[in-house]
Amino acid sequence: MFPENLLKQISFIKEIDKVKYIQRKTKLFNSDRNENDAEHSWHLALMALVLAEHSNESVDILKVVKMVLIHDIVEIDAGDTFIYDTQKNHSNTDEERIAANRIFGLLPKEQADEFITVWEEFEAGETKEAKFAKAMDRLEPLLQNTSNEGGTWKEFGVNYEKVHHKKSVIKEGSTAIWEFAEQLIDESVEKGILKKD
Amino acid sequence: MFPENLLKQISFIKEIDKVKYIQRKTKLFNSDRNENDAEHSWHLALMALVLAEHSNESVDILKVVKMVLIHDIVEIDAGDTFIYDTQKNHSNTDEERIAANRIFGLLPKEQADEFITVWEEFEAGETKEAKFAKAMDRLEPLLQNTSNEGGTWKEFGVNYEKVHHKKSVIKEGSTAIWEFAEQLIDESVEKGILKKD
Repeated sequence: MFPENLLKQISFIKEIDKVKYIQRKTKLFNSDRNENDAEHSWHLALMALVLAEHSNESVDILKVVKMVLIHDIVEIDAGDTFIYDTQKNHSNTDEERIAANRIFGLLPKEQADEFITVWEEFEAGETKEAKFAKAMDRLEPLLQNTSNEGGTWKEFGVNYEKVHHKKSVIKEGSTAIWEFAEQLIDESVEKGILKKD
Repeated sequence: MFPENLLKQISFIKEIDKVKYIQRKTKLFNSDRNENDAEHSWHLALMALVLAEHSNESVDILKVVKMVLIHDIVEIDAGDTFIYDTQKNHSNTDEERIAANRIFGLLPKEQADEFITVWEEFEAGETKEAKFAKAMDRLEPLLQNTSNEGGTWKEFGVNYEKVHHKKSVIKEGSTAIWEFAEQLIDESVEKGILKKD
């Protein structure tokens, strides 16, 4: 009775509710409450919208917003991997690809293909949209950790070099935001909330 | 040293973290855990993206996504009002307008004006984008309540007539989705999870 597309879309909409249960390591601003992937994705979407003018290149902002809204959906099956985890590679694992096919595959074929392509483009990080989206994904936890007296850096003993290296991805998306981020990192060392070595 | 716009945008980004603490009355799917406004807004953005083809009129989907991402930000100051609350009008209160001016006013002037305009357009519900955005906002809790054996309908003793009336706003955005929604409402009465009178 109802359009087949609509029923498929509704089943996808129900499935992705699970993103709200996936806890990240980082905490909310000035808080000891862990952030979940849905909250994180919402925040990145708004960050992308308000910070777009600082992108190194003019971006298709709708595509950036799509990227950040869906980038963690694969974690429903594959789980959240901590960025400073030394045992497990963060992205582009077989597990994540299988998850993308299953979850986006709930949608009508054309939409599923589009979402998988957008997710893969984000993961590859090579286009201007992916670079700017990844800059947002790196900036949010930096702001959170500086608001939380070091947050996950302190909790997991991460040092300046590792943070500086991981965060330098921001530069690919926005040199202006990277200058700001680099100063936050330097100040964090000065304040003693990020260890130098 | 840093662009003035960037510093204003960062202060807005920090402020809106508070949206993650605003609890809604509705619960997550098949759950007794309340949803918060950030999770809700993320879900609506994805619903809008995947359901756009069912809109009565072709919409500027980026504008719809902006609307749903920001529509509850005013609740940082004004609080969440339950849709079936008979004491308090849900929208367009002076309190909400003051909140919009304060919170969006953290952004650079041009962006603040744009966000306030988009938020007002959503609240007025007259353009095709606002109608479709509002359809998403009505559909999500309907799906949630049917997954939760009646959810807030049972909890607050809301009957068929009130639900049907409030949800009929969906029709303005999408007759196809409204047909689906209406069947869900009818089935809910049949199942005894929504009282007829």
